[in-house]
This record gives sequence, C-alpha cells and structure tokens, in this order.
Amino acid sequence: MNYFSSDFKLGILGGGQLGKMLLYNTRKFDIQTYVLDPSNEAPSRMACNVFEQGDLMDFDTVYKFGKQVDVLTIEIENVNVAALEKLENEGTKVYPSSKTLRRIQNKATQKLFYQDHNLPTAPFSRFAYASEIEDAIDNGGVTLPFVWKAAQFGYDGNGVKIVRSLADLKDLPKGECIAEQLIPFKNELAVIVSRSATGETKTYPVVEMEFHPEANQVEYVICPARISEDVAKKAQEVALKASQAFDHVGVLAVELFQTEDDKILINEVAPRPHNSGHQTIEASYTSQFEQHIRAILGLPLGKTDNKVASVMVNLVGAEGYTGQVHYKNIESIMAMDGVTPHIYGKKETRPFRKMGHVTIVDQDLSTARQIAEEVKKSIKVISL
Amino acid sequence: MNYFSSDFKLGILGGGQLGKMLLYNTRKFDIQTYVLDPSNEAPSRMACNVFEQGDLMDFDTVYKFGKQVDVLTIEIENVNVAALEKLENEGTKVYPSSKTLRRIQNKATQKLFYQDHNLPTAPFSRFAYASEIEDAIDNGGVTLPFVWKAAQFGYDGNGVKIVRSLADLKDLPKGECIAEQLIPFKNELAVIVSRSATGETKTYPVVEMEFHPEANQVEYVICPARISEDVAKKAQEVALKASQAFDHVGVLAVELFQTEDDKILINEVAPRPHNSGHQTIEASYTSQFEQHIRAILGLPLGKTDNKVASVMVNLVGAEGYTGQVHYKNIESIMAMDGVTPHIYGKKETRPFRKMGHVTIVDQDLSTARQIAEEVKKSIKVISL
Repeated sequence: MNYFSSDFKLGILGGGQLGKMLLYNTRKFDIQTYVLDPSNEAPSRMACNVFEQGDLMDFDTVYKFGKQVDVLTIEIENVNVAALEKLENEGTKVYPSSKTLRRIQNKATQKLFYQDHNLPTAPFSRFAYASEIEDAIDNGGVTLPFVWKAAQFGYDGNGVKIVRSLADLKDLPKGECIAEQLIPFKNELAVIVSRSATGETKTYPVVEMEFHPEANQVEYVICPARISEDVAKKAQEVALKASQAFDHVGVLAVELFQTEDDKILINEVAPRPHNSGHQTIEASYTSQFEQHIRAILGLPLGKTDNKVASVMVNLVGAEGYTGQVHYKNIESIMAMDGVTPHIYGKKETRPFRKMGHVTIVDQDLSTARQIAEEVKKSIKVISL
Repeated sequence: MNYFSSDFKLGILGGGQLGKMLLYNTRKFDIQTYVLDPSNEAPSRMACNVFEQGDLMDFDTVYKFGKQVDVLTIEIENVNVAALEKLENEGTKVYPSSKTLRRIQNKATQKLFYQDHNLPTAPFSRFAYASEIEDAIDNGGVTLPFVWKAAQFGYDGNGVKIVRSLADLKDLPKGECIAEQLIPFKNELAVIVSRSATGETKTYPVVEMEFHPEANQVEYVICPARISEDVAKKAQEVALKASQAFDHVGVLAVELFQTEDDKILINEVAPRPHNSGHQTIEASYTSQFEQHIRAILGLPLGKTDNKVASVMVNLVGAEGYTGQVHYKNIESIMAMDGVTPHIYGKKETRPFRKMGHVTIVDQDLSTARQIAEEVKKSIKVISL
C-alpha cells in the first residue's frame, strides 16, 4: 500500500483536540485523512481532507464512514465497536482493534484482563450495581477506604471516587462498577508504548505526574520521571507487556502507580495518543502522534529518545469564568525560554475545561521545572 | 489585538509548500488564516481556514484579499507590491513591507541596497539590457569570468549563470541584469534572523551548504556549520545587520559566502521562511515558521538554539521520471534514527522538481551526516 499517494485514505473516529494534533503533526506525510465527529465545530475539521458530521456511537454511521477508508483509527474510545468489528471482518484495518476497545471501554473488563494476563494491578471487586457494594462491605469482601470506579464512560476523573465511609456511597451512580483497593503510592507514572502492525515495539521514557501539594490535582507532567533507573525499567517493562498482551497496534498510554515499596501497578490504559505524551511533540525525536501513524500504517517506528527534558502543564478554564475564552498573559509565557503554548481552539471556556496545554523544554530538567512554575503562575484561561 | 481569538485574521499570499509548513507548524496557536494562491490545488489549501484562488500579481485581487485580514504576510516574493503599499497606507500590517519587497524583488536594487548600507557583498555592475555587457567587457568595466544574474524573477538557480567567455553571453535573456565579480569561496553559508514588529531580534545558528564533489549542487544543509566560532559570529552579525537595514519584520534568510580569506559576503536574502531553515522544525527550540508568526504578530520571539544537530536533504524529482509521484524506499529511510521525511503533496514529479525534504537529527553532527548519506543513497523520487 502506498500511503504517500492520494489513493490511500486514513479515517479517524473523533475530531477533538487529540485528532487535531494527530493531523497537524503528520501533515508532513501528506496522507489523505477522513474525520467523523458529532460536532460541526470539531477542532479537527479544518485539518483533514474530508470531514463528516455524525454520531460515533451509531452503528450505521461508523460502518458507512469506515467503508470509505483503508485504515481506521480513533482519538476517543467511546465509539460503536460492533461497527468496527464488522469492518474488520470485511477487510478494513482497524487500530486499535474492536477487541482491544471492548476490553478497555469497560473498566471492569479491563481490570480482569490485567488479572488474566499477569499484569500487575491493584486488587479489586466487580459489581453489576453500585448497590451491591454495601453488602460486600458488611460481609468483609470490600474494606473501607477504597476507590470506586464506574465501569463505563468515566472521563478525566469523572467516574472515580475515593470512598472513605458508608455515607460516601450515597451519591454514587447506580451502574456497573469496581471497588479497588486503595494502595498508597509514591508516584503516578505513565509510559507510552508504540507497537506497529508489523509487531515492532518502541517504548518512550517514563513520565511522572507531579501533584499540587494541597489540591489533589496533577500540576506538571515531567519527563524523564525523577525515579531510579530500576523503577523506570520496571515501568517500561510492565507497559510493554501490556501493549503485547492487548496485541495492540498504535500507541498505548499506560498509567501506572509506583507503590511505597517500589512495585509498579497498572492504573489504566488508553489505546491512542494521550495527555501524558503531549511533551513528545517538542521533546522527543518522534512525537506520539507521528508514532501512532507510523504504527498503524506498519511503517518503521521512530526513535523514542528525548532530545531535551520537558515539563507539560495543562491549560484548563479558571474557576469563575464561563464564556468567550481569553488566554491572559499568553504573551508573557511566550517570552520565556523553551515555552510552547498549544491552543485547542475551543471558543468557550468553563471552569476546569481542557483548553490547551503548554510544553516547556530545556537541556536541564530542573530549569524546565522552574520555568513551568513561572508559566503556571502567569497564564490564566478566562473569559472577557 | 487578541491573536488567539476568532476575531483575528492572518492572510498569506501564496499557498505553496512554504505556506503549508507555515500553517501546519502553527496550528497549535489556532490562529485564523486566509490564503490566496493562483492554483486550486495549492498545498496550503486544506491547512487554512479560508482559501481564495487568484492571481498574486493582480492589484485588485491582492488588495481585496488583503482588506479582509489584520496582518498580511507572504510565502513567495512575486506578488503585487503596489497593492501591499495601498493596504499599508490604509492601516493593514504588511510584513515583509512593500518597501522591503521592492528592494528584494529586483536583484540589482537589492545589490545597490547592500552597497548603500555598507553590507558586504561581491562587487558588481548593473545593466538595463544584457546586450550592454559586451561593451563593458570591451572597455574593461567587467572582467571575465563573472556571474550573470537576471534582475527579476530568477528562481532556484534559474536566472544565474557563470559567464566564462563571450560565447556564454549569447543565450542570456535580454532584460535587466547584473554582472557580479566571481569570488572564490570556501563555503556557502546561511543565517536566519528573526526580527519582530516590536524590534526584538534573534539569530539562528549558521548553516552550511555542502556541495556534491562533482555536480555543482547543494547536497546537504548542515547545522551548525562546520566553521570557526569567529566566522560564525561574523556571519550572524552581517545577517543581523541586513535584517536591521531592511527594517524587516519576520524571518529573513540571508545567504552568505565565506571567501578564501574568511570574509563574509551577502549573496542574497529571502524575507520569509526558507529552505535553509527547514531543519529548525526538528532541530531548534523554535521552528522558523513559528518564529515568523511570532515576529509578524509582535509576540515575543522564541529561543533559536539547537536542541540537536541536523542535516537536511532536499527531495527532488529524479532524472528520467515524469508523472504520478512515488517515493521509492521511503519506508527504509523512516527506519533510520532521527529521520523525518516531509512530503509537499505535489501529485506529479518532474526531473529536479522540489517534492519534499528530509531532516536528519542527532546529538552528534557527524552521526547525522552519516545517516544523511544513507538517506540520499536510498530514497528516490520517481514515477510508476
């Protein structure tokens, strides 16, 4: 297949900010791209050759869209998997596969998959209904405190809650869920593994999430993680093993915990470019977006080493502001060394809405970390 | 002015490969972009918000296009300058300015400008008609051999010829031209200088053109140039002085000669992103494309240091092939460390047509240079 000719067509389900970055970071390959997204104002819209508006959960829409393309990928997991399965059976290359997406879409299934494949993860119980948890606590099957996770459609911290008392159970959604043992950890880490259609694999350096000392919120994504070589190696091995267990093709973002006693546990995975890999655009020899494209087309994978160290800061809407977005002090952060803002192009800001991110790179990680603190102090996503 | 809102509009005259790279390397800023190009199949077409087809040399077309935007720039010099002048007078920001473009469009005027501003350049004579050169040789005003250059519309080696004998004069175009003293040089160098609307300046490291030992053709663009620190400093100073003399806003690519006795002479300049700066995408903290946008919007300029060393190879159509393009062995070069192909998206190849470029980056320049040789041996732009 000649990917670099206009005969070849790549389809992407979802046209959000990930899809936009996927597209603009790979325009250099001049590949023909088709995008399906429910919103007429999808950020990807102007970065692709053909845009179609439609429901990603609708069988017919996804199937019809997929029939036009040679290779189909996603930038969001919540798509109609049955349609993907039919497309696969009829010869379309779908990466990630319908099988992987089914396993990942449901967090209970995902956790069982880790158990079945000897992939380290925190112990858990699965419940068809949240109402069953109280019984399990009564009979000792679940111990307080624990982490409740909705099995389906949780996003960015929604669908996850630490349950410390019976009272905390009251407001939980009723559906399928898991109760995961609350394991104290030293670090939250992530590793992006790329695995190509030919089976070639390449693993990115480990990144570390630095939390705000008071608010329980990731402030900085740091690469390389400030951990021992041994722990880094272990994290990369676990991530690679997960990618192979899923028989995944594309990039797989593996979120990990480093426990107090330096064990590595899988938290969850995303079978696509991920927030924990945004720094690769500026810091790596090959960005996660380019790597995803290389992988799903069966092209050789690019080098995953860092050129420079990096810190990534998410740009989220400030509390108290809703309306037409304004990036206050963006000029002043652009005056700082090695600072690149990425604006996702959403017109309206809301508190905590992801509006963009900023990457800070430097030869020296501690310099980048200092500059990141200045960035965080300066820029504010508000409305006018 | 809020550049990061949908109220702001940036216009670009020309929608070729430079415009395409300008656009996809700055999509992260989500700036609204308008492009004017004569071709309906312009590479920029799908990377901009609004595309208009029209003649860049037509006063009314350029003027009408420019009236819609807040800031207007170019990716090609041959545009209607009178229209830009009217737009400037009516308040549109035009970078590069009509004045700079007028000075640069005509090579005789450009050379006179260097003389007037004490910028070092090879001695030359100006002729309204090529037929006047023979008289000048007869009366000793011009000495053989010399370099003939057409004053207008010369591109990529067209419009330049070394004249060694009277016989060489026969086939020259008749129009305005210059006869430049042929000065033996050690190296052909280039420096990109960025100068913002606020007057801030930042200079990129010097690049070196490595020529094929037999064919008189640039094979590799090498950064940093393998020259002494003194010469590098001198080259950067001359380039910066040129940018200031033009009162230029944007990036200015300054092509230079390093003479046998280590003098630096200006060959010519381009007031826009340039082939000699393509490696900045992968190698620099800030790409020339991002820097151009920062400069013309009056945003702070980005850091111009290298993250890594680089070698750039142009992809031109192989001799003997015309028709639908095929990038032979592109997969094998993508398997090499630090190699990124850029495909410009032209459907048809012709001998020597610029079809793309490949950047090779590495911590170590000599490693990058070795890999570049492998790249050059492997990839071939042919038709099937």
